Amino acid sequence: MTTALHPREDTGLAGRLARSAAQRTSGAGPRTAQVAEWLAERRAAHRFAVTRIPFADLEGWSFRPDTGDLGHRSGRFFTVEGLSAVVGEDPGVRWEQPIIRQPEVGILGILAKEFDGVLHFLMQAKMEPGNPNLLQLSPTVQATRSNYTKVHKGAAVKYIDHFVRPGRGRVLADVLQSEHGSWFLHKSNRNMLVETDEDVADDPDFAWLTLGQIGELLHGDNLVNMDARTVLACTPVAFPERSAQLSDTMLHSWFTGERSRHDLRTAAVPLRSVAGWEQDPWAIRRPDGRFFQVVSVGVEAGSREVGSWTQPMFEPTGRGVIAFVVRRFDGVPHLLAHARVEGGFLDTVEIGPTVQCVPDNHPVLGSAGRPPFLDLVLEAKPEQVLYEAVHSEEGGRFLNAESRCLIVQPEAPVEDELPPGYCWLTPGQLASLARHGHYVNVQARTLLSCMTTGAVTW
Amino acid sequence: MTTALHPREDTGLAGRLARSAAQRTSGAGPRTAQVAEWLAERRAAHRFAVTRIPFADLEGWSFRPDTGDLGHRSGRFFTVEGLSAVVGEDPGVRWEQPIIRQPEVGILGILAKEFDGVLHFLMQAKMEPGNPNLLQLSPTVQATRSNYTKVHKGAAVKYIDHFVRPGRGRVLADVLQSEHGSWFLHKSNRNMLVETDEDVADDPDFAWLTLGQIGELLHGDNLVNMDARTVLACTPVAFPERSAQLSDTMLHSWFTGERSRHDLRTAAVPLRSVAGWEQDPWAIRRPDGRFFQVVSVGVEAGSREVGSWTQPMFEPTGRGVIAFVVRRFDGVPHLLAHARVEGGFLDTVEIGPTVQCVPDNHPVLGSAGRPPFLDLVLEAKPEQVLYEAVHSEEGGRFLNAESRCLIVQPEAPVEDELPPGYCWLTPGQLASLARHGHYVNVQARTLLSCMTTGAVTW
Repeated sequence: MTTALHPREDTGLAGRLARSAAQRTSGAGPRTAQVAEWLAERRAAHRFAVTRIPFADLEGWSFRPDTGDLGHRSGRFFTVEGLSAVVGEDPGVRWEQPIIRQPEVGILGILAKEFDGVLHFLMQAKMEPGNPNLLQLSPTVQATRSNYTKVHKGAAVKYIDHFVRPGRGRVLADVLQSEHGSWFLHKSNRNMLVETDEDVADDPDFAWLTLGQIGELLHGDNLVNMDARTVLACTPVAFPERSAQLSDTMLHSWFTGERSRHDLRTAAVPLRSVAGWEQDPWAIRRPDGRFFQVVSVGVEAGSREVGSWTQPMFEPTGRGVIAFVVRRFDGVPHLLAHARVEGGFLDTVEIGPTVQCVPDNHPVLGSAGRPPFLDLVLEAKPEQVLYEAVHSEEGGRFLNAESRCLIVQPEAPVEDELPPGYCWLTPGQLASLARHGHYVNVQARTLLSCMTTGAVTW
Repeated sequence: MTTALHPREDTGLAGRLARSAAQRTSGAGPRTAQVAEWLAERRAAHRFAVTRIPFADLEGWSFRPDTGDLGHRSGRFFTVEGLSAVVGEDPGVRWEQPIIRQPEVGILGILAKEFDGVLHFLMQAKMEPGNPNLLQLSPTVQATRSNYTKVHKGAAVKYIDHFVRPGRGRVLADVLQSEHGSWFLHKSNRNMLVETDEDVADDPDFAWLTLGQIGELLHGDNLVNMDARTVLACTPVAFPERSAQLSDTMLHSWFTGERSRHDLRTAAVPLRSVAGWEQDPWAIRRPDGRFFQVVSVGVEAGSREVGSWTQPMFEPTGRGVIAFVVRRFDGVPHLLAHARVEGGFLDTVEIGPTVQCVPDNHPVLGSAGRPPFLDLVLEAKPEQVLYEAVHSEEGGRFLNAESRCLIVQPEAPVEDELPPGYCWLTPGQLASLARHGHYVNVQARTLLSCMTTGAVTW
């Protein structure tokens, strides 16, 4: 052990990240304009096919005789179980739903390296069965523990060694972040950015891109996958704001108050008896068609660790809307944050975007059940839309789960009086909270990744 | 709403706290040397009596016929249930135990106010049935939600309004912190420091003390209660170290790795069938006498919201040892932190002190079961002991739960090679982590409170 101390803060890193974010059209790897083409080429180089199958055709997966829970015979991967949730004081709001339980912590890791003095990030052209276009830009490593401990009995995860061998690289970020609280029970993944100065072997399915190039690609639909977006949201870039509507302590206090005032009580229930849901040979769904359905797919793939497999997936029944509404105070941009309760959150509440919903689930315009600010976002004029793209949620578990992602600055500022559970914070404050787990939900992190990569500037 | 922005950081606060910490012998209230006398006087002014009673004499509490769980007929307060825990991969380490379930978030709040330009803190002489000397210095407010929503049907909680009316005071700290993970299931409380400039009514059971005075009192045995210590640990004082063995990012990465590599799987089990425990009319305990027992007490009190009541309590079977081992690197003090798994933690792992155990539970000196560094701490010579006092754990739930709390700097520095799960961090790094929940456990926060109040200086 050397006794040489490290500065607590790496003061040079913000500048290096800013240089990488400033380089937007080209870098050491493919030019930004060529990435879509490269992805198409990788898609053609492999054999991919995803087919819907009935539950009876799942291989290795079955419904437990006692509970009806859906699991793999190895006891690994994940299970689909039932959840009952109650929010608020007795009687509260109650519901039941299927939910994915996958207690192990996976690694989402992006490897970084300087080329010509500029940080680049090693992005993978990765197939996931749930992505509408199958193949998207992904982190260098996207591995469940089953992956990298070889429960799959497949090939080793490429580059994993940079993330599991402590001290090999220089860690730029490493934080456990929650996954979708409406679909996953207490799931979190390790979001890592690790810099290396070693030689890194080339691979045709991987490309080095700058932060700015990735930011440009975030303007495209379904190009940058969810796992990449959540890691990018944790990039420790510097934001300029030194003042805000709420000081950092006041913001913490608001969040602590929101977490304290909400009760969330959940319990496992047998999948077979989840109230309000029904099962047929092809799906577990609600008769009213809302929210999502549990289905099964068969996958043929050439570039995954295993060549072919079958698995259950969650398929939402409509396209989501994920949006931050912006207002400037004294010229400083602020985002309208919403303290959200989701049944699968480990700790009751996380900060979500201003709007996060599937509009089809709330069809009556102007009704009490219509989420606040949804119509404001949907009716925004083009010049008020600072950012817009369609992105998919995690394609390993969710089938065709697309959301329209927006950052909107309405012409008439949002009024001063906010509904309960909403508050204004700056992009820098959101980024500071995202250095820790359980503060910022995965949807808000997608929008944050547009800010850390410079896809949105103010 | 005013559009005047706040600086994100309150740069003046650290200096104001330092001034309060520097004032150690007297302030606007009682002199430090008089506080023990004042506590004795308040003890005499009220009528307190705590008696052990058999479970059958509990009023309003009963064992549920189906599970044997112990609860109150109102459904409020808390329940004693069974917990089964498995740590690590199959088969892992397994155990069962009784545990307290109290899902509501309480408030532990200290009111602050400047007198003659120096911050003072309003401390309460509060009786808790589990404290060996009954009455100790407590936060201004120590309220379960049942307390302040009046389920007790007792008197209102004094000064609570400063903590539940947003915007009334100026929040200096507000964070949800975990309670004892071995005794409480997923319990956390809101730790608040709120400054007021309003007139505050005097009360004979309350006194204004500076941070330095409280630091001096922390040298006394059983003077400052656990709830006060955990709030004081969250005080945003500035620590001087700008460098450390690990940068803040490396430290986060170490912690994320520790949390990721541990699996903790818990499930509720009926209290009646908890393996390894037995019940008689007076106690639920282990035949081998280890860990703790569940007992009942009757309480007569003059100064509590309710004059008399009965309740179950947890009583540890030995005195604990809680200690940080210190080593200086390049002159900068570092604490040896331990990433601990406790069955009741919400998120698997929190940072505990170097040593946290009841030595009687590990009687064989030098054996494999003896906790690392325990003997190093117990054998420290007086000149190596930077801090030592006996403190009690939360006296509302735990009966005679005392720990010897130490900060020890051994003459021969701890060797470079650390056991898995240990790492060196600075006091400032520990304090930074304690600004957020689920990082620093309650035992480590007791020792941290000695640093934030200047009871230990380096």
